[in-house]
Amino acid sequence: MKKTDVVIIGGSAAGIPAAITCRRHNPEKNILVIRKEKKVLIPCSIPYIFGTLRSTEHILISDEVLEKNGIELLIDEAKKIKRVEKTIILASGEMVSYDKLILATGSLPMDLPIPGIKKKNVFTIEKNAEYLNSLLSAVNNAKDLIIIGCGFIGVEFADECKKDRDINIKIVEMLHQCLILVFEEDFAIESEKILNDKEVEILPNEKVVAILGTEEVKSVRLSSGRELKADAVIVGVGVQPNIQLAKDSGLEIGPKKAISVDRYMRTSDENIFACGDCAEKISFFTGKPIPLMLASIATMEARIAGSNVYGARRENSGAIGVFSTVTGNIALAAAGFTEKSAKEYGYNVAVGQAESPDRHPGKMPGMKKMMVKLVFNKNNGVILGGHVLGGTSTGELINAISACIQKRLTADEISMFQTGTHPALTASPISYPLVNAAEMAIKAMK
Amino acid sequence: MKKTDVVIIGGSAAGIPAAITCRRHNPEKNILVIRKEKKVLIPCSIPYIFGTLRSTEHILISDEVLEKNGIELLIDEAKKIKRVEKTIILASGEMVSYDKLILATGSLPMDLPIPGIKKKNVFTIEKNAEYLNSLLSAVNNAKDLIIIGCGFIGVEFADECKKDRDINIKIVEMLHQCLILVFEEDFAIESEKILNDKEVEILPNEKVVAILGTEEVKSVRLSSGRELKADAVIVGVGVQPNIQLAKDSGLEIGPKKAISVDRYMRTSDENIFACGDCAEKISFFTGKPIPLMLASIATMEARIAGSNVYGARRENSGAIGVFSTVTGNIALAAAGFTEKSAKEYGYNVAVGQAESPDRHPGKMPGMKKMMVKLVFNKNNGVILGGHVLGGTSTGELINAISACIQKRLTADEISMFQTGTHPALTASPISYPLVNAAEMAIKAMK
Repeated sequence: MKKTDVVIIGGSAAGIPAAITCRRHNPEKNILVIRKEKKVLIPCSIPYIFGTLRSTEHILISDEVLEKNGIELLIDEAKKIKRVEKTIILASGEMVSYDKLILATGSLPMDLPIPGIKKKNVFTIEKNAEYLNSLLSAVNNAKDLIIIGCGFIGVEFADECKKDRDINIKIVEMLHQCLILVFEEDFAIESEKILNDKEVEILPNEKVVAILGTEEVKSVRLSSGRELKADAVIVGVGVQPNIQLAKDSGLEIGPKKAISVDRYMRTSDENIFACGDCAEKISFFTGKPIPLMLASIATMEARIAGSNVYGARRENSGAIGVFSTVTGNIALAAAGFTEKSAKEYGYNVAVGQAESPDRHPGKMPGMKKMMVKLVFNKNNGVILGGHVLGGTSTGELINAISACIQKRLTADEISMFQTGTHPALTASPISYPLVNAAEMAIKAMK
Repeated sequence: MKKTDVVIIGGSAAGIPAAITCRRHNPEKNILVIRKEKKVLIPCSIPYIFGTLRSTEHILISDEVLEKNGIELLIDEAKKIKRVEKTIILASGEMVSYDKLILATGSLPMDLPIPGIKKKNVFTIEKNAEYLNSLLSAVNNAKDLIIIGCGFIGVEFADECKKDRDINIKIVEMLHQCLILVFEEDFAIESEKILNDKEVEILPNEKVVAILGTEEVKSVRLSSGRELKADAVIVGVGVQPNIQLAKDSGLEIGPKKAISVDRYMRTSDENIFACGDCAEKISFFTGKPIPLMLASIATMEARIAGSNVYGARRENSGAIGVFSTVTGNIALAAAGFTEKSAKEYGYNVAVGQAESPDRHPGKMPGMKKMMVKLVFNKNNGVILGGHVLGGTSTGELINAISACIQKRLTADEISMFQTGTHPALTASPISYPLVNAAEMAIKAMK
């Protein structure tokens, strides 16, 4: 029996920062990460194996950071948690005792009940280097690739798989447009246009109802009856919390099928914490459970869980949902509510939108058009969401907006936001679109 | 006599947004901008005429935005304000009556009492296209260029003037390093290195004591006695508030020689407001006057002044000071206090620093190393300053930090900051340097 103070099960976007944070607050404890995979991948970088990077080797997370922080790593699989004895039984047969336990077991690809989904050359997105290598070679050999789902995975895979490859790509999407669960429709349409320009065909309002072929996939049948040729299929319809271990040990599971946690990331067992995709997410806005799984939320929760194991220190204020993606050479980002989702939730909404070159003057090299849309609660002026379309600085501008949401800034406060501006880096201070979008919203509130 | 409701004197970074904001809040008023210059330039873009853009034409601010907002523009110079009669006398002899007046007269190059400073081919940085065109042709013809001052102007001019030009550039700086009034020394040193690599020579701890030559400049003499060859000199030592008009009309002037204003941007005359470089700046932190002149502060103040003319609506919380610049292909940015300046002010300081590639994995194209340093008040955990060194997204990351400062976030809040991350746009969520710098500061607070 191996004796430890703190055990973290899982060693990816949640497990690593949970362990490091725990170390930071508890220099004297011994901390062990138990990880099933020999190597772990940066999850959000997976699509970039298929065009930009061309190798899973480039997206491996180094274990160095664990060593550096005096955290032990054990490659093994936790099969059972005996909560009364505070002991974990591993696949190898070994046992580990813990004082405090953090579950960071992540997520698994969603099961789609499509007949034929187990055929050869039909792939989900497993966070596993070997599996992804076989997907890479299938894509390299494919003439006709079908992607199921036009969310982040679908859009990014299509964009990447088209790079320097002679391949026909069709994306089958059950909704009427790509990416619209989190992005504004008029922003998301820009991604569609770029994919169309690259001759990726998007088939909206369609479902794959069967995957055909003998052993290998040969085609897919759609809900409309249409049949599409396919020598590879990527199922990119999202993930579900990996909760088997927690469930088996009797921990409470929430309505979205994730491990129930309180604001301290504590599960129904006071000695067990959970964070990342396996843990229940509560909306920052509504306080209700939401099905949101993002690496950036995972690391945030990990920093909470890791600091709380020996006494409550940090509270989770709920997930805002901050997203960014790239299609071709434009970036799209969103934080919080869209105009539509805010209205659906019952808010009285005021919206402001502004556009500007992201350099000043617009003749500066690398200039891209930047659009910002902000969504406010008309009743109190507080920001509910922000949306950006632009160049690479989009990724940090949405984080500025996230800070505004987190601190519940009003349109008036954002309109007086103190920005730094520079010709080669940002829009001009006069046309800075974040500030001007807030001004437009104020006008709309009158 | 021309009769108006609101007059704005000045039509650049302060005057334009003041007029537009005023229009937004007062759709029924007639608004007039009086501007001395036929054409106005984007002030912060001026250095980019000399390398990247090569023409003043590219940095003109269009008057279209005024037209679009129903704002009248008069090209003339205000010579006198008769406050009792609420009348402005113009250089043309015409008179304009106002109900409310906003002064946005900007700044003028600092006068340096150096003998010979009026010689031919010695230039200050005037925001005037014709003048800058003559500077451009002097630079085009120069073999030996001397720049006085290694602040933003000095660094950006040197970097730009070196582009595709066979020219010797020396910068004379009275302090021991470039850019250190607002940047951390170890960040600013990176700018120096890049300039050195480009064979720009920086002469620290030196002053120009005389400019020599008969009619034209031939050389400069330094405080050390050394003499440097020069066929052009750029004086880049900053600006002073342009307050002559305000002074002549008896408005109160503050200790930093700028027009005194209250939190509503109201001068000592209740019908006259001031904003931008001509108006007094109060520190966000100390509440005391500070000599800070930035286009981004000007636009912020303009949005306050413009909304307050017919009733107090917005308050100025004081200037944080958010700066960004580019040298070669790296960007530097700062918001608020440096570690040194915070200590000098008497704060008990805790500092955190973190570094990460600004893409994930680091193999993603366009990757630059990003460094973030945060300065906190150790007594209450509240952020006092932030510093970023990195690629182009630096410009928006510093704005996220500015939002944190404005809302007085603590290190603990920043450590749980909800970021969006993306392989092609940002650091990984695990190594996101803003969050990790906050974590390091928390460690330092223990």
